[in-house]
Amino acid sequence: MIVYGDLQSGNCLKVKHILSFLGIEHQWIHVNILENETKTPEFLSINPNGKIPAVVLDDGRVLCESNAILGYFAEGTDFLPTDRFQKAKVYEWLFFEQYSHEPYVAVARFIQKYLSMPESRVEEFNSLQAGGNRALALMESQLATSAFLVGEQPSIADIALYAYTHVADEGGFNLSDYPNIQQWIRRIAAIDGYVGMS
Amino acid sequence: MIVYGDLQSGNCLKVKHILSFLGIEHQWIHVNILENETKTPEFLSINPNGKIPAVVLDDGRVLCESNAILGYFAEGTDFLPTDRFQKAKVYEWLFFEQYSHEPYVAVARFIQKYLSMPESRVEEFNSLQAGGNRALALMESQLATSAFLVGEQPSIADIALYAYTHVADEGGFNLSDYPNIQQWIRRIAAIDGYVGMS
Ligand SMILES: N[C@@H](CCC(=O)N[C@@H](CS)C(=O)NCC(=O)O)C(=O)O
Ligand SMILES: N[C@@H](CCC(=O)N[C@@H](CS)C(=O)NCC(=O)O)C(=O)O
Repeated sequence: MIVYGDLQSGNCLKVKHILSFLGIEHQWIHVNILENETKTPEFLSINPNGKIPAVVLDDGRVLCESNAILGYFAEGTDFLPTDRFQKAKVYEWLFFEQYSHEPYVAVARFIQKYLSMPESRVEEFNSLQAGGNRALALMESQLATSAFLVGEQPSIADIALYAYTHVADEGGFNLSDYPNIQQWIRRIAAIDGYVGMS
Repeated sequence: MIVYGDLQSGNCLKVKHILSFLGIEHQWIHVNILENETKTPEFLSINPNGKIPAVVLDDGRVLCESNAILGYFAEGTDFLPTDRFQKAKVYEWLFFEQYSHEPYVAVARFIQKYLSMPESRVEEFNSLQAGGNRALALMESQLATSAFLVGEQPSIADIALYAYTHVADEGGFNLSDYPNIQQWIRRIAAIDGYVGMS
């Protein structure tokens, strides 16, 4: 199995985490988005949407979208509940991540960390702070009532939200405003098989 | 069961469709987002993220995120494949919808149709066209090879992507550029239980 990704990208780190937590062997091929390596004809023949992560299974079939990849590998493991409602709550967090968290927290981090905050994007960067803080506040209040986002065991909801939350400071967010999130970050970093971004 | 929603909203129409296709009884409570009815204390106690759709099950438990709701009701029905890879492909489309389709097609439509294109948002409206057309082109090429987005049977991937695609013209997109999508729209409108937006 081959994973195309960049460990500095939270969306890709999610895939690294589920594979590492489950002990699934794979080859990791680094793709540099700043050099447009996701837009080459070769890469577009793997993922026509031109984004990493992308997973090529041993039989050649391709799976994209980080959170769909998480679901694929987690099914039948402790990282995805079997109870129908609990499973739906995990997916609720996964869709929340893509719609209400990543577009603020990850994009602000991209502007500051990858692009070194060009003048032309300062206004956008500032405008992302409110939405990012709204998303973090929602996580904070859930984590006041449970150790992980869905119940007392880590699931792919935690893997997905961890990815950009634990580096939210790189996008201008102040995690010391979110003590429950900080404790949760430590709980995730303690999972067997945990890998850092670099 | 109670569904909070607005039938003019594609995200809410998805929920109406899965319930109608499966013949699941429910009460529909109309919520007006332009009057900030998603931001009242009462509504925020149902969905702290302040968005519709939201489903309150008979036991009082709440499920949000349109695509998580689709997954919840589709599990065990013909609208979600049981094969692990096929199911992951359905979720791939659902995440694609929230990340690479809805933020362009639905937001452009919102600016034009709900807000009547205020001067202050014309530039944003124009900037959304390229991303929306990229998403539509990706669907178009998939639909050149299969009758529905994942295989020959309709799944929740089709329900989710249908929601804003079939009214993409209201966001400035020209569906006659996408003949496969136009045929697919007709196939979906022919499903038993189909409901329109109004
Ligand atoms: N919804 C996708 C988003 C993936 C994504 O945006 N990947 C970024 C890197 S973090 C990328 O490949 N960007 C290059 C581009 O969009 O051109 C997922 O969750 O996998
Ligand atoms: N990711 C959410 C998005 C829901 C959403 O954005 N709903 C809109 C109506 S289509 C809404 O409630 N907007 C009010 C607001 O965000 O204040 C889903 O798929 O359910």
